[in-house]
Amino acid sequence: MPRIVMKFGGTSMAGMERIRSVAERVKREAEAGHEVLVVVSAMAGETDRLIQLCREAAALHDAREYDVVVASGEQVTAGLLAMTLQNLGVNARSFMGWQLVQASGAHGNARIEAVEHRLLDEALQRGTVAVIPGFQGVSGDNRIATLGRGGSDTSAVALAAGVKADRCDIYTDIDGVYTTDPRIVPRARKLHQVTFEEMLELAGVGSKVLQVRSVGLAMREGMPLRVLSAFEDRPGTEIVTTLRSDMERNAIAGIAADRNEARVTLTRIADRPGTVAAVIGPLSKAGITIDMIVHAATPNRGASDLTFTLPRPSLAQAMAVIGEHRAAIGYSEMMTDQAVAKVSIVGVGIRSNPDLAARMFDTLADRNINLLAVSASEIKVSALIAEEELELAVRVLHTAFGLDAVPEPADEAAR
Amino acid sequence: MPRIVMKFGGTSMAGMERIRSVAERVKREAEAGHEVLVVVSAMAGETDRLIQLCREAAALHDAREYDVVVASGEQVTAGLLAMTLQNLGVNARSFMGWQLVQASGAHGNARIEAVEHRLLDEALQRGTVAVIPGFQGVSGDNRIATLGRGGSDTSAVALAAGVKADRCDIYTDIDGVYTTDPRIVPRARKLHQVTFEEMLELAGVGSKVLQVRSVGLAMREGMPLRVLSAFEDRPGTEIVTTLRSDMERNAIAGIAADRNEARVTLTRIADRPGTVAAVIGPLSKAGITIDMIVHAATPNRGASDLTFTLPRPSLAQAMAVIGEHRAAIGYSEMMTDQAVAKVSIVGVGIRSNPDLAARMFDTLADRNINLLAVSASEIKVSALIAEEELELAVRVLHTAFGLDAVPEPADEAAR
Repeated sequence: MPRIVMKFGGTSMAGMERIRSVAERVKREAEAGHEVLVVVSAMAGETDRLIQLCREAAALHDAREYDVVVASGEQVTAGLLAMTLQNLGVNARSFMGWQLVQASGAHGNARIEAVEHRLLDEALQRGTVAVIPGFQGVSGDNRIATLGRGGSDTSAVALAAGVKADRCDIYTDIDGVYTTDPRIVPRARKLHQVTFEEMLELAGVGSKVLQVRSVGLAMREGMPLRVLSAFEDRPGTEIVTTLRSDMERNAIAGIAADRNEARVTLTRIADRPGTVAAVIGPLSKAGITIDMIVHAATPNRGASDLTFTLPRPSLAQAMAVIGEHRAAIGYSEMMTDQAVAKVSIVGVGIRSNPDLAARMFDTLADRNINLLAVSASEIKVSALIAEEELELAVRVLHTAFGLDAVPEPADEAAR
Repeated sequence: MPRIVMKFGGTSMAGMERIRSVAERVKREAEAGHEVLVVVSAMAGETDRLIQLCREAAALHDAREYDVVVASGEQVTAGLLAMTLQNLGVNARSFMGWQLVQASGAHGNARIEAVEHRLLDEALQRGTVAVIPGFQGVSGDNRIATLGRGGSDTSAVALAAGVKADRCDIYTDIDGVYTTDPRIVPRARKLHQVTFEEMLELAGVGSKVLQVRSVGLAMREGMPLRVLSAFEDRPGTEIVTTLRSDMERNAIAGIAADRNEARVTLTRIADRPGTVAAVIGPLSKAGITIDMIVHAATPNRGASDLTFTLPRPSLAQAMAVIGEHRAAIGYSEMMTDQAVAKVSIVGVGIRSNPDLAARMFDTLADRNINLLAVSASEIKVSALIAEEELELAVRVLHTAFGLDAVPEPADEAAR
């Protein structure tokens, strides 16, 4: 019998009326002959309320006690959903995170290590719908451990892998993954399929549909995901290992926009081995991740400029770290710029088609958009540009790669 | 090192400001050299809010899911108090009910069976304050089980017994046990000491300070209790096995008033063995507890009246049960009266001094208060009277037994 995991976010669980409509949806899947495991978030706003109480209790609080407090939100919705299902005549019960999800690592930001699946297997095989609070498990010292914000997606994927589910459906208030941010391009299109790699690149650079960690875990486990609207009955987006060949899809899945960038340039850095490492090493030790990096030594000059980008919130700290290591690095001047942004084309087609990068640069050049830096991976090409040109860049690329939606009455009505 | 349990109710935990003041109080006890275990209730109103959600989920809900939902209230306050204590520099941590309190019996109304005290002993001996959510434990099938409303008092006593505490302090919004209801007798006096038996009689008949179950448990375990104000630093009431002989106290601890009575009279019931059993048996089977019972057969008449009292809410059901068994019982008429009340004198002195009962009846007779029925136990004498005479009866008995407070400025100011 097909086994599925259904995950519902906080907006879907906000109040008894919505919990009832979630229960109806779960009932339909159970009656369609699925073994169903449901993972729930806390009611929208509840986790923030609990976090606020912790802040009032102590500015710096024990993460283990924080976990005890905030984990209660999902405990409540799990119990309420189980009751509501029973009331609809569905055989259901809740399981607590401490009963079956082993976690490790820092409290407040733990990782799932293992799922005690025998209890669940038994329940699912008996036809019981299992309802489980997301975002939590039990640590090695037998205390409640939470997975960090958004961890319910990761719980759902880990539980799906633990019980060897056939797929994991994530119900959310966004009805799927789009070719780009619909606020920038109103004609952005919902994708029927993306690969895990594409999803990671799209999620990592701005399309906030799924927690990145959950996508990475699903990729490693080969667990097919679907992102669906919790409020409408329309097909969502499938996230898979390999695109089905019968699916008509562009080589480019989408255009990602990321404003969370800052640029640092160190001038007249010596052209000798180890200078780049002398910069990156101390930053990495301070927990700062470098994104793009450009270091083109000009022959016979003996010195050149090093440019790199990093997350905007880390800029001040990075400047301090570099200042401390000035002597070891040996640069002339440090220049920074926060008015930059990154635009990327993402798609598995890039791997086999170098023309796509060229088309990207041509398209941007046609609009006189200056490239401050460029980087490329197997399935992504990114350009750093002036932030004020970001929206234009996204729009022209979206059109150039054939992503604009052909208006369909049904599609338009749905947004 | 003396080991104490401190229990705080919902009003003491209502919001971070009050939780901070609880933490200050716990800190003082810890700094005074006590090993401290704290049992907490949910924030006032929170348990009701959660119960309401359960009702909305399903009119008839699974008690195991109800337990999952409502137990979260104390989980939150336990975490918050532990954090707040740490913030005051006190070494503290929370323990969940499922980590150490084994419970049995019906979910939603479970009993504590055992306390896994090794974890607690270890923490307490290291000087860690242990904070534990009241009202909950873990059932035999490893699911959260709650103890029923007011169960936090019982949790506190069970944990105190489990860790062999020297005493258990119950902090509440009532600052102690009074000689009678201060709303009836403004000069009611706070008792410095009562025995467990007296407390049970006072609690059972109307003085709602402590959950009856917790007093019974403390009595069986010989665990000294104190009832104290959570908001003021004044001595409360000690509840002990035997009154200390150096304590000046009246033979009578207090006067209890109970309006929750209804009277049933069956006329012309046959004077033969088994008739009383024929009445009580079916009622008991229906779960109805009889309180007072009067059956004085008049010699040579062959028939007489049987009068008994029961809780008012059970009256309608009792009438139905008796009607069904009319033939077996063989009575002429069933008469009922709900305008009755019970007044009782309670005190360990009654055991050794039969004059006290006589003084009670004389006092009531002096005021022309008619006795509808009378019952007596080792430490209590009760009279059933017309409800409209209850307040007068309580006042005159309070004076007659020397319980009226001698006005002391401090005492007056404190109420």
